[in-house]
This record gives sequence, C-alpha cells and structure tokens, in this order.
Amino acid sequence: MASEKHSVAVTCTAPVNIAVIKYWGKRDEKLILPINSSLSVTLHQDQLKTTTTAVISKDFTEDRIWLNGQEEDIGQPRIQACLSQMAVSPSTVRRLARKRRSGEEDLPPLSLSYKVHIASVNNFPTAAGLASSAAGYACLAYALARVYGVEGDLSEVARRGSGSACRSLYGGFVEWQMGERADGKDSVARQVAPESHWPELRVLILVVSAEKKLTGSTAGMQTSVETSPLLRFRAEAVVPARMAEMIRCVKERNFQGFGQLTMKDSNQFHATCLDTFPPISYLNDTSRRIIHLVHRFNAHHGQTKVAYTFDAGPNAVIFTLDDTVAEFVAAVKHCFPPESNKDKFLKGLPVRPAPLSDELRAALGMDPTPGGVKYIIASQVGPGPQMLDQPHAHLLGPDGLPKPEA
Amino acid sequence: MASEKHSVAVTCTAPVNIAVIKYWGKRDEKLILPINSSLSVTLHQDQLKTTTTAVISKDFTEDRIWLNGQEEDIGQPRIQACLSQMAVSPSTVRRLARKRRSGEEDLPPLSLSYKVHIASVNNFPTAAGLASSAAGYACLAYALARVYGVEGDLSEVARRGSGSACRSLYGGFVEWQMGERADGKDSVARQVAPESHWPELRVLILVVSAEKKLTGSTAGMQTSVETSPLLRFRAEAVVPARMAEMIRCVKERNFQGFGQLTMKDSNQFHATCLDTFPPISYLNDTSRRIIHLVHRFNAHHGQTKVAYTFDAGPNAVIFTLDDTVAEFVAAVKHCFPPESNKDKFLKGLPVRPAPLSDELRAALGMDPTPGGVKYIIASQVGPGPQMLDQPHAHLLGPDGLPKPEA
Repeated sequence: MASEKHSVAVTCTAPVNIAVIKYWGKRDEKLILPINSSLSVTLHQDQLKTTTTAVISKDFTEDRIWLNGQEEDIGQPRIQACLSQMAVSPSTVRRLARKRRSGEEDLPPLSLSYKVHIASVNNFPTAAGLASSAAGYACLAYALARVYGVEGDLSEVARRGSGSACRSLYGGFVEWQMGERADGKDSVARQVAPESHWPELRVLILVVSAEKKLTGSTAGMQTSVETSPLLRFRAEAVVPARMAEMIRCVKERNFQGFGQLTMKDSNQFHATCLDTFPPISYLNDTSRRIIHLVHRFNAHHGQTKVAYTFDAGPNAVIFTLDDTVAEFVAAVKHCFPPESNKDKFLKGLPVRPAPLSDELRAALGMDPTPGGVKYIIASQVGPGPQMLDQPHAHLLGPDGLPKPEA
Repeated sequence: MASEKHSVAVTCTAPVNIAVIKYWGKRDEKLILPINSSLSVTLHQDQLKTTTTAVISKDFTEDRIWLNGQEEDIGQPRIQACLSQMAVSPSTVRRLARKRRSGEEDLPPLSLSYKVHIASVNNFPTAAGLASSAAGYACLAYALARVYGVEGDLSEVARRGSGSACRSLYGGFVEWQMGERADGKDSVARQVAPESHWPELRVLILVVSAEKKLTGSTAGMQTSVETSPLLRFRAEAVVPARMAEMIRCVKERNFQGFGQLTMKDSNQFHATCLDTFPPISYLNDTSRRIIHLVHRFNAHHGQTKVAYTFDAGPNAVIFTLDDTVAEFVAAVKHCFPPESNKDKFLKGLPVRPAPLSDELRAALGMDPTPGGVKYIIASQVGPGPQMLDQPHAHLLGPDGLPKPEA
C-alpha cells in the first residue's frame, strides 16, 4: 500500500543551453534577477546532459548530495536556495503543491519534512570547461519537483541555483524574460519555438585547450555590473531590440540574421567583460583564431553560413546548417590539426568526411595551429528535461546511497 | 646673398605619444575629426623619435619622399593631405604665412611653388610594432612649416596625416580637443602640462611577440564607428567625464587616479574593438598576461603602483613612478623570462637590477611564459618637436638626395 512506502525515487535528465543573446549581470543578487532578457538554444541530451536522481525517505536523517560520484557539501548556498524553494519557502511550495495532479496516488503522502538524497552526473567531462551549472540546476529543480510531487513553473527554483538554469527547463529556443517585479515572479523562462522547429540547425562545440579559468562567471558578472559603464548601456539600450530581432529570426528560420546577431551579441558580451575593472578575458588566442576562421569562411561564401558564440570560457559554440557541417569541420581540422586521439576528434553526431577545397584553404589564409582545438562535439537542438521511468536509471540505490559504478 | 640661395633645408625631430584617454573613431573621415577628445603623454625622444629633413629648391622638378631610406610614393593620400595643407590650400597657407616671423631674413623668398624633398627615419625598429605614424606626421608637419617658413597652429596639418599626430606637436601631457565645428578648425591639440610637470613618471614599453596585425587602425576605427553600438555611447556619455578627470589627475600628479583611469580607458577602447563587427582583437594572450600581472602586482601592494595601456597592437605601455621601475621590471622578467639577447632585454633609461621578493613572486602566482615579452624600452615624459641646427643632422645632401649611411 502507498502509505507503507517510505521512500520515493525519481531520476531526470536536463539539457545544456547556449545563449545567443547573453545573460550577464544581475539586478538582484539574492533572487538572481537579470539586468536584461536572454535567449538560448537547448542542446540535445544525446550529446550533453545532466542526470539527477532524487530520493526522499522518512528514514533519511539529513539531506545529502553527490556530484559526479563525490559527496559534496549540501550546505552550498546555491543548492540550499533550490532546496529552500522546494522544501522551506511556504509560498513557493504551497503554490507548487496546489498543482499536484491526480493520478499520482502511488506517491507517498507528501511530506516536505522528508530529507532528500541527491546524486547528479554529467555525460561530458567537467574538464571540457562546458557550462554545466545550467543543466545541473535545471535537473535538480525538475527532480525535486517530481520527487516531492509538485508542479508549476520551475523557473524560480532553477534560477535560484543558477540564473541561466531556468532556460534549460525547456527544449528548443527559450527566452528568459527579465521581468519587472522586485520579487522576481515575472522573471521566467518560456519556449519561443520547440526543438522540432528548425531541424536543419546544427551545433558544434569546439573544445579549446586552455589554462585554468581565472574568473568565475558569478564573481565576474557582479564586478561587471559594478564597474562597466558599457554593460548598463547594453542591457538597457541594446538588448531589448536584439531580443525582438532574435525571436523574429528564429521564428522565420533566418540563418543569416540569426547567425550575425548571435556573433554580435557574443562579441558585445565579451566587450563588457573587457570593460570590467579589473578586466575579464574569457577568449584566448585560439578563440580569436576561431572567430577569424568563421569570418573568413563566411566571406569566402559571401554569406553567413556559420556563426560562433562564446560563454565564460574559451570554447567556441558554432551554429550552422546541416549542409555546411562537413565543410566547416574540414576547415577547422585544417586550421587546428588534431594533435592526438585523431579518431576521437569528432564526437557526437556523425559528420561525413569532406575534403577542403583549394579555394577555401586559400581564402582562410591561416597558418595551422596544431592542437588548438582538442575536439569537436557535434550536436543539434533538443528537448527539455525528461523523467526516466526505468528503475535501473537511478543513480542511488534503495538505501539512498550511490550505486557502485557498473 | 639670400636671394641667390636656391634651396633651404631643415631637419626636425618629433616624439611618439601614448594616449591614456583613447582616440577611436572619426566623425569626418576626410578632415580627420574625432568622435571624442583624447589625452596623451609625450614620450622622450632619447628613446623614440622620428627625424625628418625637408629641403625645398627651385631646382627640384618634383616632390619626393624617402622613409627609412626607401623612396616611397609621394602620392599617398595622407602625405598629400599634409602637403596640400602646406602648399596648396590657400587659406591655410596664407594663414600660416602671415605669421612668418621677422628675423628669418636668411630664408629665401618664400615660394610655395618650390618642390620639396623629404626624408624621414625612426630611431626604433618598425618591426617593434610601435605606432610611428603620429611621430612621423607630426615631424612632417613641423618640418614643412619650418622649411616653408610659416608658423601657427599645426594641428590641422599633422591631423590630416594621422589624427593622433597632432598630439605629438607638444611635449608633456597633451589634449586633443575634438572640437565642434564642421570645418575642424577647433579640433586642435593643446598642452595640458609640460614635460617637467611630473618628473617621477616613467614609461616602460613591453614589446610583445606577435603575429602580423590583421586590422589596421584606420580601417578598424571606421568599421567600429559603423558597427559598434558601444563606441558611440562611449564617445558621447563616457569620455567627456573621463577627460576632465584625467586632466585633474595629471595636474594633481595623482598616480592612483591617473593609473586606474588609464587602464579603464584602454580596456574600454579594446572593448569597443571587440564590439565591432567583424570584431577586432589587438590584445593577444601575452597582452592579457601582462594585464593580469599588473593587477596582481597592484593587489600585492594594496595600491595602483603600475598601469598599462594598449594601442592597436599587443605591446603594453606601462606607466609607473621611478621608485617602482626596478621591482616591476623584475616581475616582468620573472613572468616572461628573456629567451635570447638577454643583455639587450632592457633598452633606454638604465634600470638598476632588483631581486624579486618571495612574497611578490607568490602573489603573482603566474607560470613563466618564456619569450612572451621580447624586450623593454624604459623611457619618460619628453618634449615636443625640435629643430636641429647642425647641418650634419640633415638626412638629405646638398643635391636633395639621401646621404649615404654612415
């Protein structure tokens, strides 16, 4: 009988998202409210995802969390912010709980006093420097909501963990509306177009060799808000029109417009980082060579066939259409000859090998930089968080502790 | 008798200047009128200067020019712009000629129809990537005015060759007022403080190894004006207050304020380059390591003891006070161990060797990058253009052709 079941386990997955109109700067540090709206593309979870298992049990004596197999301090403020949205803050929880659906009678009597065990893993190496916090907190919010049996808009729960995590709550093309309210209730994510909207769109992640990052994004954006005169102007005077234009380009599947605006907004974000004091530099010489390569590639074709965007690190995320992937990958291999593991240089979606034409090679006019790009992950637009039904997917065993790795 | 003298030769020198409030963007491409005022420090000519000889003779049949020993096309638009200011544009010439002083009776009857031979050399290698056009055009304007026996404000003559050249017409600290008039008559340079004003100030040029520059400054700033939303905001809303603050800091010899504003304005200039489309990147990984080094150095001391600025290239120009030079040079040598020519790593003013303290080494926390900095030129604030009286200083012989090199 349900009343005798003392624990519930759920396992969910959530995607990485890549902003094409960038989020940089909070107007409220505690509620994580941004100074401008942003827009992102959700990547397919076949290539990049976070998987999170949450178990609640009346037998647990404390909350615990394991990240990529290592137990971490559950007291971290961002994790506590998510948990408190779920299990402490009465307004949020009651609002969510009210929406609990019928048909879930097999869940135990909802008890927000039950302690939770959480385990989370990424299917990509942390060392790759890919932003994992968005997928991580989206997955945490989604799993917590499911395990506590509540529903509703999870934007605030995810956002309190990591601002951009609210955009990983949906598939396809997702807008995070900055909102106007001081309490942040209107600072929410919404889907602009579903993952099926633009099937030709492809995403290539160029993982760049780099030294350790010097400035984390949380500290970085706070310093930017405090010191960059250009950032406030960007947020107030530039982004609103760019959001409208980007949504229009997405809806019309206008790659020229989408690609150019994506590049411009990436550049402007990094410009405001440089205008920060002390300045923040996430791009390195390899990043700049990739930028140069993209512009030369497009100039050769006389149109924007490829676009780059960079987050708080040197890795490039490339958008292009399926008919251009093979040629662009050949150009990348020419400019950044793989140094080792040549057979593992291309991960993710299959890319058919293509030769580089002499004309394009000449047009690029770049001396090869061996090893500058470590590898490429080929992906596409994908869906939002998923719940896994199979019990064997759980990362935690019946005892609430991590399963031994297979 | 003067009337029988068929030629006149003058030789002048002019300094390099380094902007601490940057000039980037023209509101009038033809007249070279800037979108914002700028402020620079004139470097001492003992370390960096251009020397120019101008000879006019009724026997010359055409204008000719030699740059660093090679004859160049005198028809280049920027050189013609300077020449035309001197020898064609009636308004300018007459305005200048009216001011011809008495006591110059040994000059021949002024004839603007005389053709001119010009020779110009730099005392620093072009390969160093140091901006030489400002010194070059200031020297050209100064030499032409002297050889044609005219005086007056040479801002427009120099500016038409290269905008920032007008700032090299004066020593010390120099403001280029953007002006308001459409004809540019009020877009002039003026001295804010003479070279004797701040005797402790030192300037170190860190010459950085680099690939060939991809974007020249003329084309770059035009593209920035056309494409960067941030540049116009900077020019209109940020620079005016910075100019006033910088002049105040210079007058008060406030190094903290001077240094911080110098760094912020360099960063903002490069931010607008990055906001340009396609983006422009003048800083490379070594430049960014130098930026990091300066901030760590200052953090270690708990105050701004050193400041950087970067122009349209990767070389760093460092401002500091005389009591800090030795320690900072030791820090640079630690972070960028000289690869070759160790005895030629330090050029210019003598710097006493100093050890790097263990505390500072630990505070820097940077892995050494051998060869990142090729060499350092130590200099200081210096005077404006000079006229050399010794005939042996002339770069052109009595025949109006370059003298054989000694």
